[in-house]
Amino acid sequence: MAKVSPRTLSGFMELLPAQQMKMERMMSVLRDSYALYGFTPLDTPIIESAEVLLAKGGGETEKQIYRFSKGDSDLALRFDLTVPLAKYVAGHYSELSFPFRRYQIGKVYRGERAQRGRFREFYQADIDVIGDGKLDILNEAEIPAIIYNTFTRLGITRFKIKVNNRKILNGFYAMNGMSEKAGEIMRTVDKLDKIGAEKVKQLLIEEVKMLPYKAENVLDFMAITGSNAEVIEGLERFRGMNETFDQGLDELKTVTGCLKDFGVPEENFAVDLTIARGLDYYTGTVYETEMTEHPEIGSVCSGGRYDNLAEYYTDKQLPGVGISIGLTRLFYVLNEQGLLSDELITAPCDALVLPMTEELGSAIAAATALRAAGVRTQLYGEKKKFKAKMSYADKLGVPFAVLIGEDEIAAGVLSVKDMQSGEQVKLSPDEAAAYIRQRVDERNRGAVIRE
Amino acid sequence: MAKVSPRTLSGFMELLPAQQMKMERMMSVLRDSYALYGFTPLDTPIIESAEVLLAKGGGETEKQIYRFSKGDSDLALRFDLTVPLAKYVAGHYSELSFPFRRYQIGKVYRGERAQRGRFREFYQADIDVIGDGKLDILNEAEIPAIIYNTFTRLGITRFKIKVNNRKILNGFYAMNGMSEKAGEIMRTVDKLDKIGAEKVKQLLIEEVKMLPYKAENVLDFMAITGSNAEVIEGLERFRGMNETFDQGLDELKTVTGCLKDFGVPEENFAVDLTIARGLDYYTGTVYETEMTEHPEIGSVCSGGRYDNLAEYYTDKQLPGVGISIGLTRLFYVLNEQGLLSDELITAPCDALVLPMTEELGSAIAAATALRAAGVRTQLYGEKKKFKAKMSYADKLGVPFAVLIGEDEIAAGVLSVKDMQSGEQVKLSPDEAAAYIRQRVDERNRGAVIRE
Repeated sequence: MAKVSPRTLSGFMELLPAQQMKMERMMSVLRDSYALYGFTPLDTPIIESAEVLLAKGGGETEKQIYRFSKGDSDLALRFDLTVPLAKYVAGHYSELSFPFRRYQIGKVYRGERAQRGRFREFYQADIDVIGDGKLDILNEAEIPAIIYNTFTRLGITRFKIKVNNRKILNGFYAMNGMSEKAGEIMRTVDKLDKIGAEKVKQLLIEEVKMLPYKAENVLDFMAITGSNAEVIEGLERFRGMNETFDQGLDELKTVTGCLKDFGVPEENFAVDLTIARGLDYYTGTVYETEMTEHPEIGSVCSGGRYDNLAEYYTDKQLPGVGISIGLTRLFYVLNEQGLLSDELITAPCDALVLPMTEELGSAIAAATALRAAGVRTQLYGEKKKFKAKMSYADKLGVPFAVLIGEDEIAAGVLSVKDMQSGEQVKLSPDEAAAYIRQRVDERNRGAVIRE
Repeated sequence: MAKVSPRTLSGFMELLPAQQMKMERMMSVLRDSYALYGFTPLDTPIIESAEVLLAKGGGETEKQIYRFSKGDSDLALRFDLTVPLAKYVAGHYSELSFPFRRYQIGKVYRGERAQRGRFREFYQADIDVIGDGKLDILNEAEIPAIIYNTFTRLGITRFKIKVNNRKILNGFYAMNGMSEKAGEIMRTVDKLDKIGAEKVKQLLIEEVKMLPYKAENVLDFMAITGSNAEVIEGLERFRGMNETFDQGLDELKTVTGCLKDFGVPEENFAVDLTIARGLDYYTGTVYETEMTEHPEIGSVCSGGRYDNLAEYYTDKQLPGVGISIGLTRLFYVLNEQGLLSDELITAPCDALVLPMTEELGSAIAAATALRAAGVRTQLYGEKKKFKAKMSYADKLGVPFAVLIGEDEIAAGVLSVKDMQSGEQVKLSPDEAAAYIRQRVDERNRGAVIRE
């Protein structure tokens, strides 16, 4: 029979078992961390009506989208988790209580040009808080705590949550008569990290067509850096010139003022006036998160405050604040950088029960007892030589082999072999379960990511 | 602005938060249960090349499939988790160790005619054990234990795992010269439950065109019921007439003989000779699982042994055994029948911290302390009246409200209100965390399903 090549599409991540275990652990940390902050899990369809998904229309998105017909229906695959959230909140408005806090970890689809490290199917892990009409600034102030907690639990220690406020930027551009060019300026300023202040100034003058002193004004403003107190002091000098600016500064002061009570160390936080995060959508606090030793990765967790989640679906004013982790890409780069810990167990089981006799009853009973005690146990039933069995255990990285031969059956014990140390002990089934669980818990105590 | 209706496609399940929490709990039980038996989690793309996905081709499947083009690519959405597994194992053959045991819980797509309780996007929760060339019968014998453990953990007690062996059926039909009509006979016998023996006999004679005594032979065979020992005794009478039959009977004896050591009570198990599960694919033990009080639901967990997982992709002989739970449909019917427990907490948080003063530092610090102690905590920041805050807590079904007013701040305590009993106590943050955790753990101790 002619065979079809069992290939996986380019741009689609498909992991081998040990890698997948690491990915599962990352997802588990995200779920637990989001839940700890009072977010409820949500699951929405991957396919939506194209009309619904593209209600906002236009732009890059539409070109990348997976869109197709089935019968008479014009369908599309979701390209983010925000549009489905907007649909969900607008559609279920009367059944939800606000503020509505949800997390969603799910696959999204974008038909980008395939290249190394770019994915067409990838997980996003989002949280959002949606208000009905209003949403208190406290929700914006809480986001850094969630990012801090999540990354710390993942095992990342050297990271910085960078925060800005769109009202501060908009107010600053307004007071300098630059509002019309604000978009262009922000896109240019975004290159500061990469090309430096001199070149940005040049671009502002030559391409954005700014007067040199105005370009300098912008660069002077962006150069306001330092501790939270220092940046705020620098910004206070502009107070009173623009209402939006003053409001943004007050919001920023609330956000930075709450950090300590939220348990966020100042070393993991920085006000960064160069952060803008796109043009239209965000209206208040905006967030990026950088791994300090790996700035080349870019922001690993971003988001911000917006005023109108679902304007394409409802007249209700639904302001919100949210952040998103591009999980597939984050996993990919962490893996490439060798930052995923190899210490945690990635085998499918913690104990591999190897029957050494024809009679299997004792081995089955042993596996049943270990499982009842909560030990992830595989029962190996293949008729192979001892060496082949041990080689299988080795390849899987199984922490413990449990040997059951005639001696063990006669004595009512199990021989438990630590596959790392080679040490072998005879224990009752109860003792064996406790022994294995304790050592497995110890090995799994570390974090998923090891910098 | 004209609004787009925020609708969800027909045949796509989208749950409200409290329902989604129940679904998450079911998934969590499945993950834990599958992992306990030594299966490794796997995740494969939802989109595959149509050529790969339809390598087997033909039949109902092809009509239902979501298939579309993107650029030059002919793509399709997976319609089950078995074909992607075959692709995965064939494609990664040299990187895997066999037996390869994986579980996968994921969405699959079938464009069926939309009707109540039928879904076009639904979760399947599968486990499979794949051998390289051979796979020991012990793997087939273990499956009932996995089903038993999984359903017991979900909270279902009144269920029966029904088992048959295709070799027994094929052997029986062969020894009676009915092999050619075996498919038709099995499809007709499948109706026994619904229309009774008399009508099945009539159909066998009139439609399958069997001689009356042969139809009676079939019905007599299917009438072999009783305890495992009784059924096996009944089957032993046919031994020696057909090699395949004898082999199947030996396999069945191994499967039933292992039940006790695997911890499966005989009351949850039955050999049922009427079970066939399709025609071509399965070659050994086959499984169905029935909720005894709800036979109308049909089998909630089915599967069997097959000899050749990936023949469309590779020359390698890859026998396996697997079972699948149609999770979305199971959730739907359990919910419809009112069998999902309302006792477990479905609120997004266990503690809702309500600041009663302008100054928020103490409330934030309290929320931070509760979270550090592992309490799922929401901090309520909206400026609302007390009544509105309590009504929000009520609507979400939050178990504990934590009130922080001037008195509490002065005394360094939290007022913890049990929203069910109305009881209110003043506790230090540490005491409050322990108090809430203990009561929350008690409330969550029950199973997801309550018959």
